[in-house]
Amino acid sequence: MNRPAFLTACRDLLGHDHVLTDDADTGAYLVDQRKRYTGRTLAVLRPADAPQLAALVRLCVAHGVPMVPQGGNTGLAGGATPDASGRQVVVSLRRLNRIREVDAANMTLTAEAGCVLADVQAAALAVERLFPLSLAAEGSCTIGGNLATNAGGTAVLRYGNARELCLGLEVVTPQGELWDGLRGLRKDNTGYDLRDLFIGAEGTLGLITAATLKLFAQPAARMTALAALDSPTQALALLNLAQRVAGPLLTGFELMSDFCLQLVTQVFSQQRYPFAQPYAQAVLLELSDNESETHARELLERLLAAGVEQGIVRDAIVANSLAQSNALWHLRESIPLAQSATGLNIKHDIAVPVSQVPAFLAATDPIVQRIAPGARMVTFGHLGDGNLHYNVMAPEGHDPAQFLAQYQSPVTTAVHDSVHAHRGTISAEHGLGQFKREASARYKSPVELALMRTLKAAFDPLGLMNPGKVLPD
Amino acid sequence: MNRPAFLTACRDLLGHDHVLTDDADTGAYLVDQRKRYTGRTLAVLRPADAPQLAALVRLCVAHGVPMVPQGGNTGLAGGATPDASGRQVVVSLRRLNRIREVDAANMTLTAEAGCVLADVQAAALAVERLFPLSLAAEGSCTIGGNLATNAGGTAVLRYGNARELCLGLEVVTPQGELWDGLRGLRKDNTGYDLRDLFIGAEGTLGLITAATLKLFAQPAARMTALAALDSPTQALALLNLAQRVAGPLLTGFELMSDFCLQLVTQVFSQQRYPFAQPYAQAVLLELSDNESETHARELLERLLAAGVEQGIVRDAIVANSLAQSNALWHLRESIPLAQSATGLNIKHDIAVPVSQVPAFLAATDPIVQRIAPGARMVTFGHLGDGNLHYNVMAPEGHDPAQFLAQYQSPVTTAVHDSVHAHRGTISAEHGLGQFKREASARYKSPVELALMRTLKAAFDPLGLMNPGKVLPD
Repeated sequence: MNRPAFLTACRDLLGHDHVLTDDADTGAYLVDQRKRYTGRTLAVLRPADAPQLAALVRLCVAHGVPMVPQGGNTGLAGGATPDASGRQVVVSLRRLNRIREVDAANMTLTAEAGCVLADVQAAALAVERLFPLSLAAEGSCTIGGNLATNAGGTAVLRYGNARELCLGLEVVTPQGELWDGLRGLRKDNTGYDLRDLFIGAEGTLGLITAATLKLFAQPAARMTALAALDSPTQALALLNLAQRVAGPLLTGFELMSDFCLQLVTQVFSQQRYPFAQPYAQAVLLELSDNESETHARELLERLLAAGVEQGIVRDAIVANSLAQSNALWHLRESIPLAQSATGLNIKHDIAVPVSQVPAFLAATDPIVQRIAPGARMVTFGHLGDGNLHYNVMAPEGHDPAQFLAQYQSPVTTAVHDSVHAHRGTISAEHGLGQFKREASARYKSPVELALMRTLKAAFDPLGLMNPGKVLPD
Repeated sequence: MNRPAFLTACRDLLGHDHVLTDDADTGAYLVDQRKRYTGRTLAVLRPADAPQLAALVRLCVAHGVPMVPQGGNTGLAGGATPDASGRQVVVSLRRLNRIREVDAANMTLTAEAGCVLADVQAAALAVERLFPLSLAAEGSCTIGGNLATNAGGTAVLRYGNARELCLGLEVVTPQGELWDGLRGLRKDNTGYDLRDLFIGAEGTLGLITAATLKLFAQPAARMTALAALDSPTQALALLNLAQRVAGPLLTGFELMSDFCLQLVTQVFSQQRYPFAQPYAQAVLLELSDNESETHARELLERLLAAGVEQGIVRDAIVANSLAQSNALWHLRESIPLAQSATGLNIKHDIAVPVSQVPAFLAATDPIVQRIAPGARMVTFGHLGDGNLHYNVMAPEGHDPAQFLAQYQSPVTTAVHDSVHAHRGTISAEHGLGQFKREASARYKSPVELALMRTLKAAFDPLGLMNPGKVLPD
C-alpha cells in the first residue's frame, strides 16, 4: 500500500477536511466507550453520503486498506475501534445524518446511518409516532451502530430489538457497490433475507448507510410501578401474570436486586430507598397504553393487587405522575452509574431463557462466591427478555482495580460456562466486537462457526471489512 | 448416478416403507396445491428424524441427487414440487412431527418441521398460550413449510410473519451437517443471523428440521367488527385511527371491495350481504384483548364512533358474540372460495407500503381495464400489512379458462410493473418457488441478485438443494 497516494486519493474524493490524520483530530475515534481498547489509524475518513462512501470503499479495496466503521463510538465491545497496527482506516458514518423520509401513514421513517438515535425518536414524535428503541446512549449513539450491533434496551419486551424495528436497509458491500434494500414493506417474500444478515454483523459483511424503520402509534400514556418481591422466582411469576393481564401493553419489566437499590441510595444521596423495609428483589413494570393514563393506572393496580393476592408481590408503588414515573426509572438507570462511581466491575451482558433466570442465579451466585469470596453481586436487567447485567463487584474494602486484575478472567469464564449450561448467550445486546469474539467462539458449535466463516469469506473475501471483529482469527 | 445403488442405500437408511417409488404412492407429492405444476421424481424419501435426515442429505450429496423438501404440500408457488426430469428426490419432512418442548414461562415451544400448524397452535393453547400464526391451510400445512416460505396470514399486523415468530432453528446444511440453533432467547447478539437466512429461503440453503417459536399470552377476548367505507383512502384513514386508539390490541385489518362481498353472497346462498345498502369498501377489524370481552367491545365501539364522527365510517357492525365474530370472518374467508367456484382467476399476492395502497389501486385498476376491458377486480387482503390479493376475474359471461390464457401474462406483467413503481413486492406472503422466480428477478437490482447468488453458491456449491426455486437460472 502506498500511503501518500491513498491519502491523496481520499482527499480528492472526500475533501481535505474529511481526511483526518493528526493525532489531535483522530484521538477521539481511537478509544472505545469503556476505554478498554486504544487503536491507531492510517486516517479517519468522513464521507458525506452513501455514493461517496461506496466510492471510498472501492478506493480502500484498490489499495488493500482495512476499514473500521464507526458511528457514535458508544459501543461496549470495542467493535468500532481499530487495531494497533495503524494500517486500518476508521470510516466515520456521522455525516450521513439525514432523515430521508417520514411516512406517517405507513408507520415508517428512513434515516441515514449517522443519525443520532434521539434525533430519530424526535422525528417520529414530530408526526405523533413512536420509534421505540431506547437505551442509555441514545443522545449520542447512531442508528447505523444500533443496527450493526442489533441494540436492545428497555422496550424489547414489547417492540423487539433493533432487528425487529427495521424493515429495509441500504448497504455498501465490501466491493463498494450500493445495495438499495430500503423497503417500507410489512411483507416481502422475494428471496434471501439480506437485511438481517447485515444487522448485527458489526460492519464485517458490509456498511449500513441507511435504514427504513418501523414506527408505532404514540401511546396516550405510560405508567410505571415498582414491586417488591422475595425472589427471582417470584419475579418470574409476576412477569407471567403481567403478560396475561396486560398482554402487549407491558413494555418494560426490569429486575433489580436489593443490593442494587442499596448501592444507588448509598452513592447518590438524593436517591431514597423506595420501600419502607428492604425486600430481596424489586421489579420496575411499565405499561404503554393507547387509551388513557387512568386506564393504565387501573390496569397496573389490578395487576399488582392480583400479585399481592397470589402471594407474589410484597409491596408496590404505582407512579401517580409522569415525574414519579421518571423517578422510578431514574432509580433503575442509576444502577450502572452507581457501579461506575464505586470503581471497576466485572461485567456480563448475558441472557438465558426467561424461565431459566431463577435457576441460573441460584447456580451461578455460589460459583462466583467460591472463586471470589465476598464479591458483591450487582444483578439487574431486562428480566422480560431474560437479559441480565450480571455484574460482580469487589468485596467491601477491596481495591476494585486489583480485584478486576485478579478475578476477571476466572469469574467471567465461570459465569459464561454457567450461561452456556443454561442455554443462554454471553452477549445479549452488546455484540461481540473484539471484546467477546474469542469467548463466543468457545460456545459456538463447529458447524455454526463454519457457517459464519463461509458467510464472511463469501461476502468479504479480501477480509477488509472491520477485521478482527465478531469472528476469532 | 447409480439409481439402484442410491435407492438401496436409501432403503438401508430409512427402511423400505419410507422410500416411495411407485406412481400410486408418489403421485400426491408431485402436484402442487394449485395444480399448476406436476413433477416427476426418483423417489419420495421420508426420514424419521433430524439425524436421519442429515445422513440422507449426505447420501444424496454422495450420489449427486438434487433434493426437493416438502411439508404439507400446501404452498402456492410450486416451491415443493420437483421438476419434470425425474432425477430429483422429494424429501418429505412429515415424519418429523414431534413437539419437542413447551416452556410456558419462557413463552416458547419447540416443534419439528413436520408438525401441522394447527397442532402447534393446539400445543400452545394447552398451556394457555397463543401461537398466533394463522392461515387458511393451517389444518394441513407444516411449520417447516411456514418458516421456509416465511408465511404471513391474518395476524401479521400484530404478531409479524413466521420470521418474527421464530427464535431459533435446527437445520440440516447442504453438506448434511446438523446445526443446532434452537435458542429460546429474546436477545442474542453473538454473530451472524443464520436463522433468518434459512427462513424464507424455501429450502434452497438448507433444510429446517425444527424451530423454537414465540408464544404469547392467550387473550381474554377477541372482538370483530365490519365497517363500511367509501374508498381505500378512507380505509387507510380508519387503519391509522385504529392504530392510535387500539394500539397493539389491533390484530386484524382486512379490506374487501363491495364486489368481493357481492360475489360471496351470489355464490353462497346462505351468506347475506352484511349492510342495508352497498358501500364501495368494507373493512374487517379484529381486536385481541387481555382484559375482557366488554372492554374489547367498548373500545371497538368507541373506535367506530370516532370513525363515524370523522366522516370515515359509513356504517358498522360490531359482533356481539363469538358466533357473530366467526360469521364476519367467514364472509372474509369465503372470498377466495367464491372466486374458485366461479372459475380461474389471475391472482396476485402483492404488497406496497400501506400508505401507497389507495394510489396503487387508483393507478392499477385502469391499467388492467385497458388490457382486459370489463375484467372484474376481486380486491381484498391484509390492508394493515399493505398486502392485497389483487385478483382479476373474467368479464361477466366470458369463459374463465380462455380469459386466463389470453390475459394472464400481460395483466400480471402490468400489475407487477405498477407494484414495483409503487415500491412494492410481487410476492408478499407466498414466496417465489418456481412460479415467481423469473418475475421477481426482473425487479431485483443486479447488486441484490448477485448477493443472493453469492449466498447460494457459498452454502450450496453443488446446487443440490431445491434447485430451480427462488433464483432464476
